[in-house]
Amino acid sequence: MRKFHQNREAIYPFDEWKIVETKFEPRFNHRSESIFSLGNGYMGMRGTLEEGIPGDVQSTPGIYINGIYETEPIIYGEFMACQPQEYQSMINITDWRSLRVSVENEEFSLFQGTVRDYARTLDLKQGVLTRKLIWTSPQGRQLRIVFERFISQSNQHLALMRCAVTPLNFSGTITIRSSVNGDVNNFHHLRDKALQVLSTTCTNEGGAVISETKNSGFTIGCGVTHRTYPKVPIMGSATTTSLEFIAKFQGKPDQTLFFHKFIAVSTSRETHPQKLQSFVLDLAEERAEQGWEKNKQAHINVLAKYWEDTDIQIEGDPALQQGFRFNALQLLQSTGRDGKTNIAAKGLTGEYYEGHYFWDTETYIIPFFLYSQPELVRKLLEYRYSILDPARQNARRMRNKGALFAWRTINGHEASGNFLGSTVQYHINAAVAYAIHKYVEATDDFDFLAEKGAEILFETARCWADRGVFLESRGGRYCINEVCGPDEYKPGVNNNCYTNYMAQFNLYLALKAGHILKERFPEQYKLLVDKLDLNEEEFKQWEKCADLMYLPFDPELGIFPQDDSFLDKDPIDIDSIPYEDIPLVANWHPLVIWRYQVIKQADVILLLFLLGDQFTLEEKKANFDFYEPRTTHDSSLSPAIYSIIASEVGYYDYAYNYFMQTARLDLDDYNKNVWQGIHTACMAGSWMCVVNGFAGVRTYGGKLWFKPYLPDKWSRYSFKIKFRGCQVKVVVEKETTSYTLLVGDTLEIMHNEQPVTLTQGHTQTRGNHE
Amino acid sequence: MRKFHQNREAIYPFDEWKIVETKFEPRFNHRSESIFSLGNGYMGMRGTLEEGIPGDVQSTPGIYINGIYETEPIIYGEFMACQPQEYQSMINITDWRSLRVSVENEEFSLFQGTVRDYARTLDLKQGVLTRKLIWTSPQGRQLRIVFERFISQSNQHLALMRCAVTPLNFSGTITIRSSVNGDVNNFHHLRDKALQVLSTTCTNEGGAVISETKNSGFTIGCGVTHRTYPKVPIMGSATTTSLEFIAKFQGKPDQTLFFHKFIAVSTSRETHPQKLQSFVLDLAEERAEQGWEKNKQAHINVLAKYWEDTDIQIEGDPALQQGFRFNALQLLQSTGRDGKTNIAAKGLTGEYYEGHYFWDTETYIIPFFLYSQPELVRKLLEYRYSILDPARQNARRMRNKGALFAWRTINGHEASGNFLGSTVQYHINAAVAYAIHKYVEATDDFDFLAEKGAEILFETARCWADRGVFLESRGGRYCINEVCGPDEYKPGVNNNCYTNYMAQFNLYLALKAGHILKERFPEQYKLLVDKLDLNEEEFKQWEKCADLMYLPFDPELGIFPQDDSFLDKDPIDIDSIPYEDIPLVANWHPLVIWRYQVIKQADVILLLFLLGDQFTLEEKKANFDFYEPRTTHDSSLSPAIYSIIASEVGYYDYAYNYFMQTARLDLDDYNKNVWQGIHTACMAGSWMCVVNGFAGVRTYGGKLWFKPYLPDKWSRYSFKIKFRGCQVKVVVEKETTSYTLLVGDTLEIMHNEQPVTLTQGHTQTRGNHE
Repeated sequence: MRKFHQNREAIYPFDEWKIVETKFEPRFNHRSESIFSLGNGYMGMRGTLEEGIPGDVQSTPGIYINGIYETEPIIYGEFMACQPQEYQSMINITDWRSLRVSVENEEFSLFQGTVRDYARTLDLKQGVLTRKLIWTSPQGRQLRIVFERFISQSNQHLALMRCAVTPLNFSGTITIRSSVNGDVNNFHHLRDKALQVLSTTCTNEGGAVISETKNSGFTIGCGVTHRTYPKVPIMGSATTTSLEFIAKFQGKPDQTLFFHKFIAVSTSRETHPQKLQSFVLDLAEERAEQGWEKNKQAHINVLAKYWEDTDIQIEGDPALQQGFRFNALQLLQSTGRDGKTNIAAKGLTGEYYEGHYFWDTETYIIPFFLYSQPELVRKLLEYRYSILDPARQNARRMRNKGALFAWRTINGHEASGNFLGSTVQYHINAAVAYAIHKYVEATDDFDFLAEKGAEILFETARCWADRGVFLESRGGRYCINEVCGPDEYKPGVNNNCYTNYMAQFNLYLALKAGHILKERFPEQYKLLVDKLDLNEEEFKQWEKCADLMYLPFDPELGIFPQDDSFLDKDPIDIDSIPYEDIPLVANWHPLVIWRYQVIKQADVILLLFLLGDQFTLEEKKANFDFYEPRTTHDSSLSPAIYSIIASEVGYYDYAYNYFMQTARLDLDDYNKNVWQGIHTACMAGSWMCVVNGFAGVRTYGGKLWFKPYLPDKWSRYSFKIKFRGCQVKVVVEKETTSYTLLVGDTLEIMHNEQPVTLTQGHTQTRGNHE
Repeated sequence: MRKFHQNREAIYPFDEWKIVETKFEPRFNHRSESIFSLGNGYMGMRGTLEEGIPGDVQSTPGIYINGIYETEPIIYGEFMACQPQEYQSMINITDWRSLRVSVENEEFSLFQGTVRDYARTLDLKQGVLTRKLIWTSPQGRQLRIVFERFISQSNQHLALMRCAVTPLNFSGTITIRSSVNGDVNNFHHLRDKALQVLSTTCTNEGGAVISETKNSGFTIGCGVTHRTYPKVPIMGSATTTSLEFIAKFQGKPDQTLFFHKFIAVSTSRETHPQKLQSFVLDLAEERAEQGWEKNKQAHINVLAKYWEDTDIQIEGDPALQQGFRFNALQLLQSTGRDGKTNIAAKGLTGEYYEGHYFWDTETYIIPFFLYSQPELVRKLLEYRYSILDPARQNARRMRNKGALFAWRTINGHEASGNFLGSTVQYHINAAVAYAIHKYVEATDDFDFLAEKGAEILFETARCWADRGVFLESRGGRYCINEVCGPDEYKPGVNNNCYTNYMAQFNLYLALKAGHILKERFPEQYKLLVDKLDLNEEEFKQWEKCADLMYLPFDPELGIFPQDDSFLDKDPIDIDSIPYEDIPLVANWHPLVIWRYQVIKQADVILLLFLLGDQFTLEEKKANFDFYEPRTTHDSSLSPAIYSIIASEVGYYDYAYNYFMQTARLDLDDYNKNVWQGIHTACMAGSWMCVVNGFAGVRTYGGKLWFKPYLPDKWSRYSFKIKFRGCQVKVVVEKETTSYTLLVGDTLEIMHNEQPVTLTQGHTQTRGNHE
């Protein structure tokens, strides 16, 4: 294993359900903004301070809406044919975050006066961010201030903020200013200003800002209203781009004053542009009438159900318990639930990767959600269906038949300015197909298959059957040239092993879907076959491609060569690479990286996990032994997969160490880049390390398989799995594992390759070493 | 052979020494501007009209100085590490071309009134461009106008223009306006305006414009002066960016009035910026005093000597005769002669490829000049020496030792925004080494080797010895991964056959140079070895790399596989590719091109020419048979090389057809892109087709080898070759070839593998079939 930096010291104290910052340090502000992000899959907001921050402190005060982007022309270093012409960048929207507190002539700031009893807390269970402190102003006035905010899990358009101020040693005027600012920019990537304010409107308590993007045609509405306790007059005013609301309280010692802000946001994607203003104003007002507590409770209720199904309880390791829960909350906060949006690489917590959706969703995040929130997974797959037409166009661009999903996109069109880091990765097609398979397997949702899934499977299969070639020099096998597998350090190779296996899987899956539809949904089958102009000959061709797929194997080494040329690359001892050169992608010229037998991330090893029933344990071990010393894990998507296979082959130290690199990557800021936003795929990987890794969960042959063990440092862990209408609770201890069927009549599972039949309400316990 | 378009109809009438345009057609103006370019290797000028042209006619009115460029930041589609950060673009300098003729209130233009007896003539022998016509103004005044211009071959800073006007049917005022305009732009690639005028100055007859580039730090001076016959007053005036000079003549029928313009141009590269103004003013004035004829004669004398040594006389094919001479003139016009500049891909005739120098110089153009202008070749190689330091930096960028020449550059630094079309082509190092070898072989100029050549050879060898790896999987052979050979449709391959052979050649050549220096220039050897910190161990390592170089051969096919993966690419019938998709590089996504067994340009076939004595005739034939049907010749560098090998293996039809595609590529505008500028490498290739192809010239073992034949359509051809202080005239006829030693005492040559000893002044004749 490449030596990785000692586990960094924890930034935040271990707490199973909380992330607590006990001191505000400006130099960490940028990082904290990502950690303290909130979101509900529709809207996300970085952990910026309500009162603002001086210009010399690093900050990206971003608020984002999933899938709302601006386009800009891509400029290339040199012309190349058939390249994507437009970037898509998720935009920073109207800034509704500001709440400023003044006492007499002094304005509250962490940068003047003195602060004590400071605590900023992200409550993981409740999804609420609070900041409490006692401030002594330069002139000696002391007051307690509590900020609290959440983005509602029960209504995607809604966010609530409040501020509670308690004078401690004085009486006097407390002024609270709330503003909404439409004059916003992106802080990364976009060259031009994206948003133009169309109109502002305000009454005394509330108002709205309506903006539109210059190129991409979105209109965005942001409405606010306010309430005070005790009730005092609020004075609203508007400029051409902003709103401000001022409330003046007469403060007395130990009397707490409340200022509540209700924010509603929508876009022309969901609401007619002409109705946006009234929609957001009405919603804000309606929710303000309901009051803070009712809205908060509705929000918490959604989260309670989420945790009920999704939580992993780890006993004996509060660091990992905290890490996992932080990840699970951030994943929910990042995930689009409407079938039109998806999960950006950095969720809704930053502008890096421009809010783009990748194969990360299907390969890392769907596996996380699938066994607890299957209905969410359906929505994520519906998104893929919604971009099938652009995927068809993308295939045409590459002179291919069928559909080729864009490597990074929001609207379905390829948005990458470097095809060797994007389009070359044809395997994204198989990732989508694989996820459809896993979804239908786990849910029996054949309606989805008939309505949407099969069409995706057919079009991706079609692409595979067109993209390769039967080569005499390979005994007539079907070869796929010039692709890149998951290992982005080897783009433009022939017969990437992962790709060929997954393409074969995709082809067989399409054929299987064809049979299912023909049998169970004959009318839909006919319609679809007509729509796609499919015929028996083409199905046969798919079968031939799959049957004859070239599947590389090196008998001498007993391993699956990553591609045709990998074994001929320059050997290199990756431990000899200076630490400051890692990640190589940021420091070495691509050609330098490509010439070496060096791997960025799990490639063959990922295959051994995804299609695990096609490989023996010995093969898994041999390949792990071969590839592990060649892998730098320069992608955060890598360690989780190595951890899973390490668990499977019994390399428990590797498994645990790789899990550690995954579970607290963002929380401990391993890569010093969390300020850019969280790493959603890696976060999902931490769930996989436990469930697929330590507990050995697989779904071979339509059944749940378990092969659990307990890492030495833990006393036990437990989790739940929904599968085919059932829900199992699994508790793993040192010697035994208990299975309880919470939902469903009976379910047959496999424990250590032995069948176990579960019945509702009963617990079955098996030895881990049986 | 891929069917290529029927030889296009000739655009200009066949004439052995002239290119004549008999009708001005606005729609062809852009193309004609390139064809009627003038230059002297230092300065070049497109064939723009003296009087200007309406805005709706396509035009690139460019004047360029070799090696004078502006830099600009490269913008990439996506970040990649260690990429070049700056473009270099040859700039369009101060426009000194304008001469406008008015008669009373009517200004001459080809776009009003009527024109007859029009002829624009590029005299290839004299390098003079004239335009004659009789113009009848809208009001009925008739006059003869003759424009004439040349860029002096005898003084690089000098250009002369004149205008002769003869009223034919009227008396009246003839006004001639000459201007110099410093407010100029590039028409391609540069995003910003490069040149800023620093000062203008003028007297009545003359003046100067001094400008500087914004980023790259060049100052450019342009001075003019004028003379009239009969002498009339000239009135000069200046704005902040331009000069204008007006002469008024009293014209009478059949009396010719002359207006002469003397232009001097220099830059801060040769002249101190403070002295630029006086330098260009003085030079223009001095030459004006000498008068038109004296300057013209000096210019013509240089060209006469050039033609004396360089011309190929082809009897029986005026089209090819004309094509060859057009090419030979344009090549001289394009070629820097000062050791600091080189030959841009489009010479000084256009802005495409940004005035960059490529391997074209060493591989295509040096072979052309070497046997007639060896002193010029030394200058071209001195340029390479002058950029050895940037080449060292370029190697560091790629984490390599030694030096790696930039693929496209002016100042020595890589200026490409796409490394897969540039840096990946390590073979440029070998091209430079090979040219040094050929130069020393042809001249015995060992001083050059000792002073400059050896250092280049050592540093390039060093790079090769660092770039590869001894691979056990290849029997311990030395393999070179992730490169691109000359075929740019296969970048990032392992063991490109051409590259490995040429790297081996480079390594052995460096060792040989080491031996020569050690023996003949021991002091310089010691200094150089110290400077480069070389030792015996390193020399031994070079030898080991060369001895063990992996040289691919496929015994089954009997061919040299272009690289490790070429034979496994998707087969394709290139004749099935629609014509409008050619060139593929402009129409297909790179990944689409790369997956196929399709070749852009001679690769293995070029190797068979360059290192011809390492391969048997059977091997050449087998490889031609294999690669020819896979080659689209999407690069103009390709057909000439196929023509040469076709000649060698006796495929005379192929040889002739490929020659045709080469010799008149620009003159007949085969690729419809000559408006962008000429194709210098292809032009040089046309010489190679005749000399290396039809006459079979090689220099094996330090001797000149001939194996001549006469293409069917020709009655004879002749050319001269300078070699090791001798000069041979070669006349090839149907049955025999005659060799006459013009210079030198004796020279042993090989005719059809038989030695022939030539003595001065005597002619030896041999049968072509002996």
